Amino acid sequence: MKHIESDSNATLKQWKKLHTKKEREKTGTFLLEGPHLIEEAISSGAKLQHVIIEENFTMEDEWLKEKFTLWSVPTRLMKQLSETEKPQGIMAVCEMMEEPEERIEKNGRYLLIDGVQDPGNLGTIIRTADSAGLDGVFLGEGTADLYNGKTVRSTQGSLFHLPIIKADLREIIAECKTLDIPVISTSLQGAVDMRKLPYMNGFALIMGNEGSGVQAEFQEESSLNVKIPIFGQAESLNVSVATGILLYELQRNR
Amino acid sequence: MKHIESDSNATLKQWKKLHTKKEREKTGTFLLEGPHLIEEAISSGAKLQHVIIEENFTMEDEWLKEKFTLWSVPTRLMKQLSETEKPQGIMAVCEMMEEPEERIEKNGRYLLIDGVQDPGNLGTIIRTADSAGLDGVFLGEGTADLYNGKTVRSTQGSLFHLPIIKADLREIIAECKTLDIPVISTSLQGAVDMRKLPYMNGFALIMGNEGSGVQAEFQEESSLNVKIPIFGQAESLNVSVATGILLYELQRNR
Repeated sequence: MKHIESDSNATLKQWKKLHTKKEREKTGTFLLEGPHLIEEAISSGAKLQHVIIEENFTMEDEWLKEKFTLWSVPTRLMKQLSETEKPQGIMAVCEMMEEPEERIEKNGRYLLIDGVQDPGNLGTIIRTADSAGLDGVFLGEGTADLYNGKTVRSTQGSLFHLPIIKADLREIIAECKTLDIPVISTSLQGAVDMRKLPYMNGFALIMGNEGSGVQAEFQEESSLNVKIPIFGQAESLNVSVATGILLYELQRNR
Repeated sequence: MKHIESDSNATLKQWKKLHTKKEREKTGTFLLEGPHLIEEAISSGAKLQHVIIEENFTMEDEWLKEKFTLWSVPTRLMKQLSETEKPQGIMAVCEMMEEPEERIEKNGRYLLIDGVQDPGNLGTIIRTADSAGLDGVFLGEGTADLYNGKTVRSTQGSLFHLPIIKADLREIIAECKTLDIPVISTSLQGAVDMRKLPYMNGFALIMGNEGSGVQAEFQEESSLNVKIPIFGQAESLNVSVATGILLYELQRNR
């Protein structure tokens, strides 16, 4: 096990730079916090470059030592590296996942995200897409960064369970159409009540920005526009909640 | 319009104390931020004791001046009073809502919250309960504070649309049983797939803590335990998302 004691250690400084999107994209790596996320990464075959442990952190077993280069740091430095109020004693530098060669497959179930800006919402949506058994999530322009610490934590590990791909949604919509996968937008105007949707083997559901919803261009290109009925006085639902309701309604007869 | 310029103004100091739960409960008041929430409060008949406006904030019309004592403050003081990174130029001190005399009515639809801790989750759940047209939400012991700034903002105004009542959930469950309202817990063991639920006119759905779920005591007292199917590899859903899925499934034939 290697040890870092100094605030000015070059390796530590390099890790701290991973708090910025620019550095994450330059290096193709991002930070993971806590034993749960690190276990999910390992069991999903993600590559960990470094595992960093707080001096007083006790691991339940020795499995980590056998597999990875471990670093120990004092509590003071762990607090600098962590982005949470209560660091969990263990962090890792993880390589970004590779994208699959075939992005869209016949009868696949996909979620297309058009500009969801809040990292917490994005992470929760990915966790929901995993629960709903989807085959992939596509992140369009203007969407929060997948590797932002808050996004990663909100996924609760689901980012390792299914392909999450940055993409031009125009291309994805076109690919879906070629494979006869219905493209469904959420919309308030001219939209069908979700409870009247027919059962679909595959689908591509587009969810939009928290304030402005799905872009008009994508709504026009969709096979159908759908809405969730509002029985009370709320103007709308939170985008993560709306995603969950729609994904489970679409798969009610699965 | 009154004006405050000094950091040590006693009225300003009093308002800032409302950042703490203790002071909110002592005074029976809480802070609102932003034009949307303030409009929702007014249109719902909530009582505003003070409306506070940033010097450079322009109101679209004169309606506020006619109704309320207005205070203007410099940007510096608004930042002290606000709990957000980007204050919206207007805040208010609002009185807590009165509770209805009859908490439970025959064939009513209710949500019982057993220890949801995150204020953002609680606010989103209240917004979802409003969208789903429920008749009331009961907050059990260990649940986040309704009047925490983050909770209030996450409700997007829905806290003014339906009764939200702090209560001993044991009493609420007993009242529901007396009125033949089925009490439904979420559970992973011995639970029915939500898609097999019969249609119910009224119901009381219990949602539990983010980590530990609904207390065993409440699960045992429930008419039935229900679960959301997980089609992928996620261990569970976010509690706000799960609430949305269940409330819309329960009301599918509404």
